[in-house]
Amino acid sequence: MSGFNVSNDPLDFLRGCSVGFDLKSGLSEKVDTGKRYLSQMKGIFADEAAYDALLAKGDTLVYEFHGMPVPEKEGDLAFGCSILYPGKVGDEYFITKGHFHTILDTAEVYYCLGGSGYMLLENEAGDYSAHELAPGQAVYVPKGYAHRSVNTSATEKLVTFFVFRADAGHDYGTIEQKGYRKLILESDGKPVIADNPKWRL
Amino acid sequence: MSGFNVSNDPLDFLRGCSVGFDLKSGLSEKVDTGKRYLSQMKGIFADEAAYDALLAKGDTLVYEFHGMPVPEKEGDLAFGCSILYPGKVGDEYFITKGHFHTILDTAEVYYCLGGSGYMLLENEAGDYSAHELAPGQAVYVPKGYAHRSVNTSATEKLVTFFVFRADAGHDYGTIEQKGYRKLILESDGKPVIADNPKWRL
Repeated sequence: MSGFNVSNDPLDFLRGCSVGFDLKSGLSEKVDTGKRYLSQMKGIFADEAAYDALLAKGDTLVYEFHGMPVPEKEGDLAFGCSILYPGKVGDEYFITKGHFHTILDTAEVYYCLGGSGYMLLENEAGDYSAHELAPGQAVYVPKGYAHRSVNTSATEKLVTFFVFRADAGHDYGTIEQKGYRKLILESDGKPVIADNPKWRL
Repeated sequence: MSGFNVSNDPLDFLRGCSVGFDLKSGLSEKVDTGKRYLSQMKGIFADEAAYDALLAKGDTLVYEFHGMPVPEKEGDLAFGCSILYPGKVGDEYFITKGHFHTILDTAEVYYCLGGSGYMLLENEAGDYSAHELAPGQAVYVPKGYAHRSVNTSATEKLVTFFVFRADAGHDYGTIEQKGYRKLILESDGKPVIADNPKWRL
């Protein structure tokens, strides 16, 4: 197609670009994902004995996501897909580590492409809520809230497309040290919210 | 599901919310779209005689989009779907009006859910490019670029999910006054880029 003045750089965030993320798998031909294996999530799940037992069976992939090389500058936006696999550690569903943004008062938008689960939010004042992720549902993560995806399906991947300010930064440390106040567990085959016995102020 | 501490407000951008946008149609049960009819796009298409002739046949819907009531504040993100109908004005495909952001140096991300077309970009220095929109393609609209969607399908709607800084603002006036430098026209059944005869510096 002549005259389409597109640079050869497939990832040109200064002049614009088009990047594919498969609508079902979330994967991209142009960009690899970062991967989080079970061994990298020590201390994240509530039931440590169940964690050790599961890890002894194999270091399974818990989730993967795109960290796009967008300039981390004001006015730019980071985007990509997150793919959270089905599984449980004891009664607790597979989750992402969860994080605050370093620039705390910056929001994030998730659009769910496949699977089922929740976005679990909580802020430093103790407010929390869980918002449904199902195909076609967009979840608004407000300013100031830690956010963690929870896959409540026994069989399907939870696939979401996300966008946030490229200069927001990730604060994983607060959650790694204090934990989340709330968990989403399976009880009688259904997801329920429970207090995290390991959470500390 | 007990314990899921979600407020009754379906659109709570301070505590978080989940909003559906159908993965095929882009439409939402919770939020109506704003609509742009052909009569509202006078002067936008290059061929004025073809525009008048088409309008005489009926005031067709050209596109619709969600203007979500997210606070227009720094750190917040506006999001929703844009639905651009198939059609042509003379040889020119149906397009959105196109705009700069008022805070010029703010990006936008589009994720295509259905249809086929292009995101036509140009900046004040004269750089331009067109980026493919097809199901699963994300287009990065860089800081400083006007952006306009172009539906090159004869039959399908072009449906995109978009996210941008909620405080960015829309500058439609610059494009309304000066026009776009480039057009995407159909020639021998294929899209081609052409100079806009009506563009003025």
